[in-house]
Amino acid sequence: MKNRISSFIGSILNTYAILFFSQNKVLGGILLLVSFVTPIAGLSGLFCALFSLIIIKILGYRHENIQSGLYSFNSLLLGLAFGTFFNFTPYYVLWLVFACLLVVMLTIILTDRLGKLGLPILSIPFILCYWLVLFGEGAYYHGGLQQKNALLLIHNAAGTGCLVNVYQYLSVGLPCYVCLFFRALSAVLFQNNILTGLLISIGVFIHSRIMFSLLVIGFISALLFNTITHNYPDGISYYNLGANFMLATATIGSFFLIPSARSYLWAILSVPVMFIITNALGGIMAVYNLPVFALPFCVINITLLYFLLLRKKAGKLQLVGLQHYSPERNLYQFLNQKDRLDDLKYFRFSLPFMGSWTVSQGYNGDITHKGEWGKALDFVIEDDDKKTYSHPGNLPEHFYCFNKPVLACGDGVVANVVDHVEDNAIGEANKKENWGNTVVIKHLNGLYSKVSHLKKGSIKVKVGDVVKTGDLIGRCGSSGRSPEPHLHFQVQATAYIDAKTLAYPFAFYMTGEA
Amino acid sequence: MKNRISSFIGSILNTYAILFFSQNKVLGGILLLVSFVTPIAGLSGLFCALFSLIIIKILGYRHENIQSGLYSFNSLLLGLAFGTFFNFTPYYVLWLVFACLLVVMLTIILTDRLGKLGLPILSIPFILCYWLVLFGEGAYYHGGLQQKNALLLIHNAAGTGCLVNVYQYLSVGLPCYVCLFFRALSAVLFQNNILTGLLISIGVFIHSRIMFSLLVIGFISALLFNTITHNYPDGISYYNLGANFMLATATIGSFFLIPSARSYLWAILSVPVMFIITNALGGIMAVYNLPVFALPFCVINITLLYFLLLRKKAGKLQLVGLQHYSPERNLYQFLNQKDRLDDLKYFRFSLPFMGSWTVSQGYNGDITHKGEWGKALDFVIEDDDKKTYSHPGNLPEHFYCFNKPVLACGDGVVANVVDHVEDNAIGEANKKENWGNTVVIKHLNGLYSKVSHLKKGSIKVKVGDVVKTGDLIGRCGSSGRSPEPHLHFQVQATAYIDAKTLAYPFAFYMTGEA
Amino acid sequence: MKNRISSFIGSILNTYAILFFSQNKVLGGILLLVSFVTPIAGLSGLFCALFSLIIIKILGYRHENIQSGLYSFNSLLLGLAFGTFFNFTPYYVLWLVFACLLVVMLTIILTDRLGKLGLPILSIPFILCYWLVLFGEGAYYHGGLQQKNALLLIHNAAGTGCLVNVYQYLSVGLPCYVCLFFRALSAVLFQNNILTGLLISIGVFIHSRIMFSLLVIGFISALLFNTITHNYPDGISYYNLGANFMLATATIGSFFLIPSARSYLWAILSVPVMFIITNALGGIMAVYNLPVFALPFCVINITLLYFLLLRKKAGKLQLVGLQHYSPERNLYQFLNQKDRLDDLKYFRFSLPFMGSWTVSQGYNGDITHKGEWGKALDFVIEDDDKKTYSHPGNLPEHFYCFNKPVLACGDGVVANVVDHVEDNAIGEANKKENWGNTVVIKHLNGLYSKVSHLKKGSIKVKVGDVVKTGDLIGRCGSSGRSPEPHLHFQVQATAYIDAKTLAYPFAFYMTGEA
Repeated sequence: MKNRISSFIGSILNTYAILFFSQNKVLGGILLLVSFVTPIAGLSGLFCALFSLIIIKILGYRHENIQSGLYSFNSLLLGLAFGTFFNFTPYYVLWLVFACLLVVMLTIILTDRLGKLGLPILSIPFILCYWLVLFGEGAYYHGGLQQKNALLLIHNAAGTGCLVNVYQYLSVGLPCYVCLFFRALSAVLFQNNILTGLLISIGVFIHSRIMFSLLVIGFISALLFNTITHNYPDGISYYNLGANFMLATATIGSFFLIPSARSYLWAILSVPVMFIITNALGGIMAVYNLPVFALPFCVINITLLYFLLLRKKAGKLQLVGLQHYSPERNLYQFLNQKDRLDDLKYFRFSLPFMGSWTVSQGYNGDITHKGEWGKALDFVIEDDDKKTYSHPGNLPEHFYCFNKPVLACGDGVVANVVDHVEDNAIGEANKKENWGNTVVIKHLNGLYSKVSHLKKGSIKVKVGDVVKTGDLIGRCGSSGRSPEPHLHFQVQATAYIDAKTLAYPFAFYMTGEA
Repeated sequence: MKNRISSFIGSILNTYAILFFSQNKVLGGILLLVSFVTPIAGLSGLFCALFSLIIIKILGYRHENIQSGLYSFNSLLLGLAFGTFFNFTPYYVLWLVFACLLVVMLTIILTDRLGKLGLPILSIPFILCYWLVLFGEGAYYHGGLQQKNALLLIHNAAGTGCLVNVYQYLSVGLPCYVCLFFRALSAVLFQNNILTGLLISIGVFIHSRIMFSLLVIGFISALLFNTITHNYPDGISYYNLGANFMLATATIGSFFLIPSARSYLWAILSVPVMFIITNALGGIMAVYNLPVFALPFCVINITLLYFLLLRKKAGKLQLVGLQHYSPERNLYQFLNQKDRLDDLKYFRFSLPFMGSWTVSQGYNGDITHKGEWGKALDFVIEDDDKKTYSHPGNLPEHFYCFNKPVLACGDGVVANVVDHVEDNAIGEANKKENWGNTVVIKHLNGLYSKVSHLKKGSIKVKVGDVVKTGDLIGRCGSSGRSPEPHLHFQVQATAYIDAKTLAYPFAFYMTGEA
Repeated sequence: MKNRISSFIGSILNTYAILFFSQNKVLGGILLLVSFVTPIAGLSGLFCALFSLIIIKILGYRHENIQSGLYSFNSLLLGLAFGTFFNFTPYYVLWLVFACLLVVMLTIILTDRLGKLGLPILSIPFILCYWLVLFGEGAYYHGGLQQKNALLLIHNAAGTGCLVNVYQYLSVGLPCYVCLFFRALSAVLFQNNILTGLLISIGVFIHSRIMFSLLVIGFISALLFNTITHNYPDGISYYNLGANFMLATATIGSFFLIPSARSYLWAILSVPVMFIITNALGGIMAVYNLPVFALPFCVINITLLYFLLLRKKAGKLQLVGLQHYSPERNLYQFLNQKDRLDDLKYFRFSLPFMGSWTVSQGYNGDITHKGEWGKALDFVIEDDDKKTYSHPGNLPEHFYCFNKPVLACGDGVVANVVDHVEDNAIGEANKKENWGNTVVIKHLNGLYSKVSHLKKGSIKVKVGDVVKTGDLIGRCGSSGRSPEPHLHFQVQATAYIDAKTLAYPFAFYMTGEA
């Protein structure tokens, strides 16, 4: 229970932190805090985050995305925007709830569509849904939503109570461009507040120095380019467009690409392209009287990522494979992997155990290794009589393979761990947590191995650990869909627990050792 | 020939009935009839339905979709809209023909695109094409089409001749909201006619009480919600938007979902979401001076369906797997299947015959079991000399397997039957009707079995029959691509006659009986 | 080096020629020449073509598409449009470079998306990007680009210097409709110049009489249809829409379809459908003050192609399978293939050599035949001791199979040839040019065979050659990833060198001969 609550709180903080492409709890906490500068906005945002987390949990979507906040941050943005731009009335609640439902639907659908291409959805679901709401409230119909007037918005910008004093103190004391930087940053939460921007800056700085440096570089690049072209006479603070440039520079330079001199170069080169996109989208949306929000940021990121994904070889500009939600960590893992895996053209697996085991269920096996899970192997230890246990065999301990060491079958990084599933009594199978205690190791991009049904509490590694061939990672157990102790081993292309198997020719590589 | 004509008439009636998600011939007939309230509209609709059926038949698209009306109902809508909104001139015919060709193209393309995601196209092809026509006839160009003026449209609403009297009698005699209900219903055929709505209501009621109840519920929900929000000051009759809400409630509550308390709840909850979508689309289209027609209905249906399809487990809100075009029948089949198949986690097949047969062609066989049809088995009966026939073997009757009973290999529902193909003389193969007489049985969602080359006239079951393992379904023959009598057996994921095979491990399950 | 330069010049000329769906160097040269009627436009076009070729080469995209100009012609169009419509200023260069980068990205992305459906991208990337630029330079922002005024554009139309005299001479001397034809043709390069049109006509006529005839037919059809419907009061020269009709007729009639009476009929029938599309798109874009350019042409082509691709049988209206970039050649190859392959239902392969060879690596082999390249065979010649070479075996010549004839394994057309890779010393493997010298033969639509690692300079065939079973095509070598001489043989679905293997049951068909 305690675990559940802390996991739920974690997913809420992630929902906030992921606005800055992070899973840093401190940054998440700061964002949650400053969202309450306009209390109704903060409240609406929190409500929408909770509401969408609950809906998605009840309907049973992919668990990893729920935990990371990927399924709920668009709802959070909707709540923040509602609270910032609309007056609070009974109609407000009514439309907020159903608009939030629509955001959830769009989030799930777009995650599927873009995810299949390896692309992120960013804040597209929020933008689409908010446009629908705005348009429905426009000249033609109206359902009771009242937009705040411009004066009130300016008033709100400074916050309430003593915050106003802080705001004025800062805006006088800080250089003009620093204020502009902070104000642009606070636009991510639909604010225009120097204090908010300052606090966010601190949070981002704690989270990642690389990302912070790119926010600054993006800000300066956009300023310079605007000075050259006079695109926005009022400067890039116009319509809060600055945040678009800063975030795009940060994500291109460090989040979707492995940080390097080249990634910084591409990040800077994308600024002028973004000007083209921003101007065009701004122009189109002005026809409909709609704001563009972060759409230019979404478009440039998705376009550039898709473009780079289609290269036949990655070259020196590397896309992030396994996302660690931290530029520093992505970089570290990349260098680490590169080091040890660089000259491995054909990755060779060892068997994930010591001694001589027997394949009880092979490729396209009869019992459970079917269809998309067809290329897996189950191992047990047999005695000379082909029995897998010593008399009487009614306890896991009687089975020869039980509690035997399970090893890393190759060098890599631990990508996924489950270690809370109880071992079953003999003859029983836990069909709810099919795979039981499991370790997934990433060996190369697109090449993962998985061992399952490990003994509860036996797992020695955690996500992110670097393992070498033969490292002890746990012990053979009987958790999950396992009526008697055995070891399930498969090769797969992704880090998911329930991923499909890959038909990797590991039988060949392992013959010598078996 | 007679069969062909009755099948063709059937596909025309289906083209009408499918406007209300039915294949009920009575409903189809009523819709055909009332479409002639504006004679030129009725005529144009019928012409377009025929025209598109013929084009699609000639070019050789998927037969099932032609028969069910899925490929022609968008053309029907185009004809009805042309007749209702444009004056009849020589240019009218010219543009109607080519616009209909465009609708057919869009229908085929969108069926492919959305079908791959498991989603319906609804009336999107019609709406797109009609917009193109309207836009081309707008301020910038004009090609001779004349829009009827508003007065004439109001005049037409009541119909002609004695129909006017009936109309006035009804509009005076019936309560206001009942009139509104009927008028909204008639908007599906672009009318605004109480009598039409009344007749359609009768047809829908005959077709399905569940669907009728949902039309009423949708109507009331939309009315209530509009009363709360004052979205449309003129009520939901404004621009005939009512039909959108009613149809969406009906399809969500009973056609795409198995009818249940939950499906009703989702249907009602989708009404406010539809308000958001309808307002937004109405607003956007007003910029271009275009009507929205049933677009809000299409968008909410496709969005919700896609959203629910992506759940990892269906839970208690079940999507319809095999569409029977009747809420009652979908529900019945679902309950029936659930009952008998509920605790079958791994479906076990029996062999589809009695006694001992021999596999003459196995998985990835040499002759015809190739590529996507690779996981199939051909069975014959051999004698001790490995011969499959008694001397001289030049007639089907000489073959041991000929006329032997073919059995259902598992519990299920018959999903597809072909029973009109002649058996071949020995050595000949009918390559036009490859599979010959065939029975496809649905065992589970995504799990079908098929037996082919049965003897003509021997099949004992029809589509929709519930069969149990071992039930006699026909007799072994030599129809289709079968130079000598044998039984083709395969497992597949869909109900189509020419579906790909599934690599289901049935060899295992059948060993005991072989 | 010389080869590289000539290949690079070839790819530039292809970039021009492919505007008229050709790879004819003469036509390419003429287009390059006439693009300089407005010198700044010609220069900008050439610059963009070069720029995009270089970017795409550096980033490592698919080589075939670079060579054919498929990846660069949209950039060329962008350069031409910039030079034609904008004044040359420092800002001009700035925006041109980044807009060109955006076109390259869109080209790669759309080629992937549409290519997966078997559809061409045509000039969609250019249109999208140019709209973005125009919109960004509109009422809302401006970044220094100046649109030329209309008077200047009319002035430019005639060209400069003595070209003006030629222009006036032609416009007086030629019949009105002939002038219109030439002017419409020159619109492909954003010109309105009779001389340009005349020169292009000559180029197209040299390239293909079939295509030229269809340009004329398309022009006449559009004229007639416009006369009937009075769609454009100013005639089809209005906004240069004529080029859309002409090009669409040409591509439908002869480029994407095998030329035939039916393809001509469809080409003509598509003219009225194009009117609907053109009017609508023109109307929609006028709302945004944007030109439609060739969008109607793109839309009708993609729609019709997609529509026809989805037929279950091709019937008599055949789509072009292997594109030869020439209607005449497509037709010739089609008739040729049809002739010889018509009644082959199951294509039978012979072994690609004489005498008795041994399979050294079979399906899903241990060394390199893995995953998507799993269904391949490696052949060597062994002596009675199972040795593949005579002592000492340190030179290719010692190996029995080296220099032995390699034969066509079936009738077909040569679709791809590589013949420049050096043979390796024994024990070395060229991992950069994996397949070494290779011949791919097309046998049927979707059925290709490939032999690899041939001896350098031994290949006797070139792309487009018709080969018969048993024809000598080269000699066994040791080029590419081949540490010792052997022959790699596989069946595949496309013409690419690095295509995946098909699991075609050729083992069966070859047993008799092995």
